[in-house]
Amino acid sequence: MPDFTDDLKPSYDGTAILQAERDRSSISVHELSKHLLSRDGFLERQNRIVPILENEPLFNKRQQLNLSRPERYHLGLARAKALRRLVKKHGWDHEDHKMAEYLTDEMSPYHLHMSMFSTTVKEQGSEEQKKYWWPKIESYKMVGAYAQTEMGHGSNVQGLECQAKYDVKSKEFVIHSPYLTASKWWNGTLGRTATHAIVVAQLLLPDAGNNGAFLSQGPHPFIVQIRDMKTHMPLDGIVVGDIGPKYGYTSMDNGYMLFNNYRVPHDALLSRYAKVDPTTGTFRKEGHPAVVYGSLTNVRATIVMHARLVLARAVTISVRYTSIRRQFKDRDAPNDTAPEMAVLDYPTVQVRILPLLATTFALHYTGEAMYNLYNDTRASIDKGDFSSIAELHSLSSGLKSLCTTYAANGIETCRRAMGGHGFGGGSGLIGINNDYLSKPTVEGDNWMITQQVAAYLIKKMTSAVKDTSNAAEDPTDELFKLYLSDRDRKSSADIICDGEIANGAILEAFRWRAADLSYQAYHARVVQKKKWNSLLIQLHKLSNAYSEMILVQNFAKALQLSRLSPATAITMTHLFQLFSLHTIDADARSFTTTNAVTSSSLDALPNLILMLMAEKIRPHAVKLVDCWALPDYILDSALGRYDGKVYEDLYDRAHRRNPLNRTTFNVDWESDEIVLGSGDGGRHLLAKL
Amino acid sequence: MPDFTDDLKPSYDGTAILQAERDRSSISVHELSKHLLSRDGFLERQNRIVPILENEPLFNKRQQLNLSRPERYHLGLARAKALRRLVKKHGWDHEDHKMAEYLTDEMSPYHLHMSMFSTTVKEQGSEEQKKYWWPKIESYKMVGAYAQTEMGHGSNVQGLECQAKYDVKSKEFVIHSPYLTASKWWNGTLGRTATHAIVVAQLLLPDAGNNGAFLSQGPHPFIVQIRDMKTHMPLDGIVVGDIGPKYGYTSMDNGYMLFNNYRVPHDALLSRYAKVDPTTGTFRKEGHPAVVYGSLTNVRATIVMHARLVLARAVTISVRYTSIRRQFKDRDAPNDTAPEMAVLDYPTVQVRILPLLATTFALHYTGEAMYNLYNDTRASIDKGDFSSIAELHSLSSGLKSLCTTYAANGIETCRRAMGGHGFGGGSGLIGINNDYLSKPTVEGDNWMITQQVAAYLIKKMTSAVKDTSNAAEDPTDELFKLYLSDRDRKSSADIICDGEIANGAILEAFRWRAADLSYQAYHARVVQKKKWNSLLIQLHKLSNAYSEMILVQNFAKALQLSRLSPATAITMTHLFQLFSLHTIDADARSFTTTNAVTSSSLDALPNLILMLMAEKIRPHAVKLVDCWALPDYILDSALGRYDGKVYEDLYDRAHRRNPLNRTTFNVDWESDEIVLGSGDGGRHLLAKL
Repeated sequence: MPDFTDDLKPSYDGTAILQAERDRSSISVHELSKHLLSRDGFLERQNRIVPILENEPLFNKRQQLNLSRPERYHLGLARAKALRRLVKKHGWDHEDHKMAEYLTDEMSPYHLHMSMFSTTVKEQGSEEQKKYWWPKIESYKMVGAYAQTEMGHGSNVQGLECQAKYDVKSKEFVIHSPYLTASKWWNGTLGRTATHAIVVAQLLLPDAGNNGAFLSQGPHPFIVQIRDMKTHMPLDGIVVGDIGPKYGYTSMDNGYMLFNNYRVPHDALLSRYAKVDPTTGTFRKEGHPAVVYGSLTNVRATIVMHARLVLARAVTISVRYTSIRRQFKDRDAPNDTAPEMAVLDYPTVQVRILPLLATTFALHYTGEAMYNLYNDTRASIDKGDFSSIAELHSLSSGLKSLCTTYAANGIETCRRAMGGHGFGGGSGLIGINNDYLSKPTVEGDNWMITQQVAAYLIKKMTSAVKDTSNAAEDPTDELFKLYLSDRDRKSSADIICDGEIANGAILEAFRWRAADLSYQAYHARVVQKKKWNSLLIQLHKLSNAYSEMILVQNFAKALQLSRLSPATAITMTHLFQLFSLHTIDADARSFTTTNAVTSSSLDALPNLILMLMAEKIRPHAVKLVDCWALPDYILDSALGRYDGKVYEDLYDRAHRRNPLNRTTFNVDWESDEIVLGSGDGGRHLLAKL
Repeated sequence: MPDFTDDLKPSYDGTAILQAERDRSSISVHELSKHLLSRDGFLERQNRIVPILENEPLFNKRQQLNLSRPERYHLGLARAKALRRLVKKHGWDHEDHKMAEYLTDEMSPYHLHMSMFSTTVKEQGSEEQKKYWWPKIESYKMVGAYAQTEMGHGSNVQGLECQAKYDVKSKEFVIHSPYLTASKWWNGTLGRTATHAIVVAQLLLPDAGNNGAFLSQGPHPFIVQIRDMKTHMPLDGIVVGDIGPKYGYTSMDNGYMLFNNYRVPHDALLSRYAKVDPTTGTFRKEGHPAVVYGSLTNVRATIVMHARLVLARAVTISVRYTSIRRQFKDRDAPNDTAPEMAVLDYPTVQVRILPLLATTFALHYTGEAMYNLYNDTRASIDKGDFSSIAELHSLSSGLKSLCTTYAANGIETCRRAMGGHGFGGGSGLIGINNDYLSKPTVEGDNWMITQQVAAYLIKKMTSAVKDTSNAAEDPTDELFKLYLSDRDRKSSADIICDGEIANGAILEAFRWRAADLSYQAYHARVVQKKKWNSLLIQLHKLSNAYSEMILVQNFAKALQLSRLSPATAITMTHLFQLFSLHTIDADARSFTTTNAVTSSSLDALPNLILMLMAEKIRPHAVKLVDCWALPDYILDSALGRYDGKVYEDLYDRAHRRNPLNRTTFNVDWESDEIVLGSGDGGRHLLAKL
């Protein structure tokens, strides 16, 4: 319905402001986008698939925040199925499908089928098993889930309570949940969607020396049909369902599942590495399951690369919005006619958003390095050489922890920097925030897995201390030996000399700190023999310090190797400096106590950071976020629109889209009627409570 | 339907674990609860009202997370109305009503009527206006909203764009929204509920010396009817509605509103302090509106007290759950039969949760002090003495900023410390987190309002520098004069001597740091004449440092005065120490650069904090959260239940309550049917998109 607001304009023009921001920077968005997003044809793929999804009514996002959680699953399933049909229609490959899922920006109820279910069959199934299952998996004739985590155990996989006891007589495994806490829990795709599941259970085999008793061989994966293929009802002896509402993942049916002495055939055990003799029930390991760690590393590289795009979304939205948004005049402005300032021109806003902008690039180059390292290592693994896997896996734990923490915290930092509108649906951050908050926990809790890095570094330091030769077996070894040779040095790095930033000294400072903290941890654990648990906080800090070093090193190295045009390259160097100096400033004390940076340099940091932000990064901020090439379709944000029509879009969402505005209410408290004229005294509500 | 899971038990007993935790501590929960929660009969009131709400079907929270956002408003309105009827039925007073709203744990659509609308009429209406409006307000015959913030301006109230132009001829104000950004925005109760609103608009009056021109007298409040009392439809010339989904406040109808030359009578202007001559249109100020700042201070004391209860909820849930939850054996345990450890026994979990437990008490004592200070000041205000308001208001800005940041961040810290289950609806934190994330922005943005504290401290330091007399006019003045008399001291505080914590030295360190940072800010702004905006980050840190000092001082003072039994008192002292030392450790560098604490003390901090947590606080943690007396009704948390039945409750939510499990789906991607057997190819979804 037309009304007097139809022709109203905002009092200033966001489109013109963003255009002016773009005009004043010499960065080439095209060049930098290509530089950042060419791997596996990402950019081309995105450009191709966005318009297809935008044209499918089922994939419009206009009302998503107004749906109930059950409706969100309905929608998620409808979209998952429609995507499969689009795969067929457009002849998409697996990467295309993944791109479409990414753009849809919600977790597909098919997700676990596409990922952990199929990966596990591929990696842990015998040749025979793969031959049987693969065609069914590929055709989506079945839908698989991955049921490992239980109500009582997540991180501690060895503590899983679900049992698979081998019955020699019938040659079957009997899967059983002896406790409520043995219930499978959290497992995606399991709740309402899956027909099959990988069930990870304690493999219990007859104890040859002890008649009637059983011995556990630890947790192993079984492939199990859980629902009838026609009625989709759970099979007898299985209770399975969706666990209910969560912070995020509304479209995903995270599930629970319990078994009551449920029998599966001998070949349900995925037996590439673990074999049970059908007749005797004796156990035999075969091959080297370490290859699985290899693929976990790849998963973690993907997590880092995903973190950078998630963070880039929050940064894109907040940079665009705070460039447009005006609030308050400069307190020191000479006269009363001064215009209000752009919010991004306040240092208190810059210091929250711009270091995160720099972080997107830091994550990018380390993600790239992880992919490259994994591919190099993969070649060795394929040749049967697993020696580098331990290092790769340990280091990737620290990076997973640090990078997902950056992104999870960064979304909220960006949101708060946007003031009131940041809290509204028009921010475009609600969904991504709710979903992403899972990341610090899943795939290894961010506080727990840092122990793996620390344990690895303590081991390396122990050998470096013992080994007096000069030959270094890898970069960590080299770092530690250099450190040990110079441990009593009195000097620390002058990262700022006469107001100039010394990039080489920055690297040196991060390296020294990481080595020194490694030595301290080694000394506490190996020399002083302190209890592991008493060192956990120290070890967590060590892991972060080491991972920060990796981020800074990879950033610097990539800039050395890149062939960016001079104007772009100099800004990238400033981003490197901002990321590094801000990281040092945020943990200045650890750079002092490790004697890594001079006190005068630390004192100079705050002003240098202010200068870098205001003079070197701020003028290019809008173009730097443009480089991440995030389409409006995925941003789904009034505040972050490419064209700057912030207020027009906010108004559209409120005035034209909001279904609540179509109902008129009875606000008289003496009446129990809710919708005016309905005569319904809240019955429609009570029925749902 | 009964099934084999009905009789399953968790593999360990949460009830027994919590009982054992309670048995091993000598803290008197009864004593401490009374100590914390007696103001205004809080505890008695809570105990009386909880059972009433628990018995009302409309107030059960079992399905809240499964409702859509529009349904949440329906429910919110139904509850708001039902609460009014309960007020009548039980003869509740205003505090009872507020308690019931607090327990309901969602923002009532009536909320602004009860708060800002009625307060503004009371404080800014003339005697005549109050006489006319008050009976209508009290009886809820009308529902009022408070429409100040606009799409384009929130913090900068002077920049509001909505106009009220006085028409001398008709003796009416013409309210008009010249731009889209002039739209009222965010205003609670306005979207669907309100019949009336306070509209804050630029008061434009005829410019006597300039025929036909108007001059703005700045923003003023008008009381305006916006909807028809029978049809509840917006009146002609007004567009009003709900702005749509947000992070939180799902039950609240935050609104937008625009005016098209909408005429209101002369007496719509609330005229206690601002009068417009009806005939000439000339403006006259009357009285001292500073009293309004006084009530803002009271609002801020309430915010601090609310922050402590919000944080106490997150801490209660996480302490109970991590006391029960087991994961991993001790890595240094002598043998394989060691039990898994309680998660709260890991230092990496303690360091996240226990300082926040200490923070709840720190916030409490400062909230109490603010109430007391306000009441003392109130007496002066009532006598017409406004001299202390500036100080009170400035300091309350810093505390609002710091305390709401603590609570907002603390909820998420507690959630992450709970691992996977923290992400589920059973955490009980989803609603409170989503709602509370607004607090760092509303009632003064947390980064912006710290300027008020800093400006005040710079002013005070400037006079302290100039004034060479020894007489101090208030505590800040006293602090600054002491500091100035000793500014060149070489020593700093030894807060730890021979492993003992020196409480007096802790206070001294916080005081010295605050004074030194105040001096630095004074020097930069007043002596070096640096631009205000270039100092914003420094000023923000100053405000936080000063507010931390206030928290630490009030905590220490309250413990000195309290008559707690010895066992409880000693633990409270340990909580004071944990809060203080953790705060110092988290910003150790600022205690170094201000020369406030010795380097050896700072080095000793981490181990002392570990010791305090593990030995002094951990044994009492469960009882210390029990003291906050948060009923299960408000926690609404499986993880945080008083009786420890974590897993039973999680399972109940999933298996018995989740409506999604009542639907069976068609997961075959080649079919577009969603619900199995319905034949509906997603039409039910598309209609909602």
